[in-house]
Amino acid sequence: MVAEALLASWRDTPTRAAIVGFVDAVVAKDSARFLPPADRVAVFDNDGTLWCEKPIPIQLDFTLFRLAEIAAADEAVRQQQPYKAATERDYHWLGAAMVKHYHGDDADLGVLLKAVERAFEGMTVDAFATEAGEWLRTAVHPQLSRPYLSCAFVPMIELLRYLEANDFTTYIASGGDRDFMRPFAEQLYGIPPERVIGSALGLDLRTDDDGVDLLYKSKMEFFDDGPQKPVRIWSRIGRRPLIAGGNSNGDIPMLRFAQTTTRPGLRLLVLHDDADREFEYVTGAEDALTRARDMDWTVVSMATDWARVFTEI
Amino acid sequence: MVAEALLASWRDTPTRAAIVGFVDAVVAKDSARFLPPADRVAVFDNDGTLWCEKPIPIQLDFTLFRLAEIAAADEAVRQQQPYKAATERDYHWLGAAMVKHYHGDDADLGVLLKAVERAFEGMTVDAFATEAGEWLRTAVHPQLSRPYLSCAFVPMIELLRYLEANDFTTYIASGGDRDFMRPFAEQLYGIPPERVIGSALGLDLRTDDDGVDLLYKSKMEFFDDGPQKPVRIWSRIGRRPLIAGGNSNGDIPMLRFAQTTTRPGLRLLVLHDDADREFEYVTGAEDALTRARDMDWTVVSMATDWARVFTEI
Repeated sequence: MVAEALLASWRDTPTRAAIVGFVDAVVAKDSARFLPPADRVAVFDNDGTLWCEKPIPIQLDFTLFRLAEIAAADEAVRQQQPYKAATERDYHWLGAAMVKHYHGDDADLGVLLKAVERAFEGMTVDAFATEAGEWLRTAVHPQLSRPYLSCAFVPMIELLRYLEANDFTTYIASGGDRDFMRPFAEQLYGIPPERVIGSALGLDLRTDDDGVDLLYKSKMEFFDDGPQKPVRIWSRIGRRPLIAGGNSNGDIPMLRFAQTTTRPGLRLLVLHDDADREFEYVTGAEDALTRARDMDWTVVSMATDWARVFTEI
Repeated sequence: MVAEALLASWRDTPTRAAIVGFVDAVVAKDSARFLPPADRVAVFDNDGTLWCEKPIPIQLDFTLFRLAEIAAADEAVRQQQPYKAATERDYHWLGAAMVKHYHGDDADLGVLLKAVERAFEGMTVDAFATEAGEWLRTAVHPQLSRPYLSCAFVPMIELLRYLEANDFTTYIASGGDRDFMRPFAEQLYGIPPERVIGSALGLDLRTDDDGVDLLYKSKMEFFDDGPQKPVRIWSRIGRRPLIAGGNSNGDIPMLRFAQTTTRPGLRLLVLHDDADREFEYVTGAEDALTRARDMDWTVVSMATDWARVFTEI
């Protein structure tokens, strides 16, 4: 199928032309830049790149749900922060914790993070997948009036399919939690669990007569952002990506990893400049945008390059 | 193709019947134990399961080569252990270090392990892959009079292809180093880098004007053996295996992980009982063999079940 049909939600802009031109050059057997399918690896950040990350990351909303669930069982816990804020859906306390953090006071943020790290302690990986999957099936975006499961960017899903049609293997490489993404990544993005790379809680093995289970620790194994992204991509794939897409400063090392001195890569940076259809912000992406301009990365403007952002609901 | 043709190096024994019977039951659409291809995950240990691990693991021989390479550049280093033993290929010193270890004296073993951990410090992942690949292309087994690259067990390679023909996805899940296995696993086993799970050295990101590279630290990130095996399998695949194959005590948790109370798994344990064609030993596999007998795991006898062990050379 021709690129234009697979990328139907992309407008006919220089951005689309840059993507198609790059892929064509890699795929054409007589091209100086031809590469075999094994080398056609494409990695994409998730939050803000494949789906919406404002006003708060969707995973954080799930974690707040979980904190409220923990608090529901214990009145004393319910009176403590952050369980109180989670139970009352008091975004003011959460927002204030972030403001205090920016002013150098990490007391409330520390309280929040400690609870977040402990939120799934002792839960099996199977129970977590069930709980995350069930929550996502009904959870709704607080501002866009659509289910979270309809908050994926349609043009990016088309891009995944277009790349796969050109024998690329697609991966998610996100700062988000690996096991939170796995239950929905296949349904939403067509990306199976083994191709989901992300942050991870530590795991313990529980062994009894019934067999072995894996349980989350109350401590992260690694936070897959910034310089960790190339490390985790290598650990999981064992190859450099040829295409990398992101939207924030934490994606810079991953995008740089996609190019070597002898082999060009395609670096895509999603710019949130569409207050009408999604959100407009550059906070947390300033360095990436500067580098994109200086190093000829391909900036994807939601407002300009996308004919539509979300599915009709 | 029928199983018998794909498993041509397997004799017609109860072991082969158990394997084929298990796979048939999973694949048949009208079977009570039918599972879709996504759930058909098979994991295999490498050393002693897919290829020979005696008299020393092949990777250790490579590491000794590397220690000799380091020592070659420095006369002073060459006079110290374990560089001296590595340079002179003095297996006596290495063997004695192990004997001392068994008698409670870890001084020499500690010296060895410290050097091993440092052997690749600061090397890029690409340079390591090249060096390991080049070494393996010419290295020869010290007793079997065949290249290391001909030390894979032919029946196990046939088993990989047979499982893939039945829509299983095959993985290596080994205590061996992930990045040591990757350069040869595709050629030898038909398993690409993204499906090689194993132990890992820590990685650092080096960033300069030319881009980013990954360099090994002098410290392991994790040793993928025993209880770590299910953790690493989950981290990489995000599914439980349905078939697991190993040969030693370190494989027990992985083999147990392949079965739940509601879903039978196939657990294969390779028994080295063939002094004529390979080696005969049970040291390090005693617990696994006991459990195999008690829990109805499938023991693969090299002597009885395999019509041939290695390729003709």
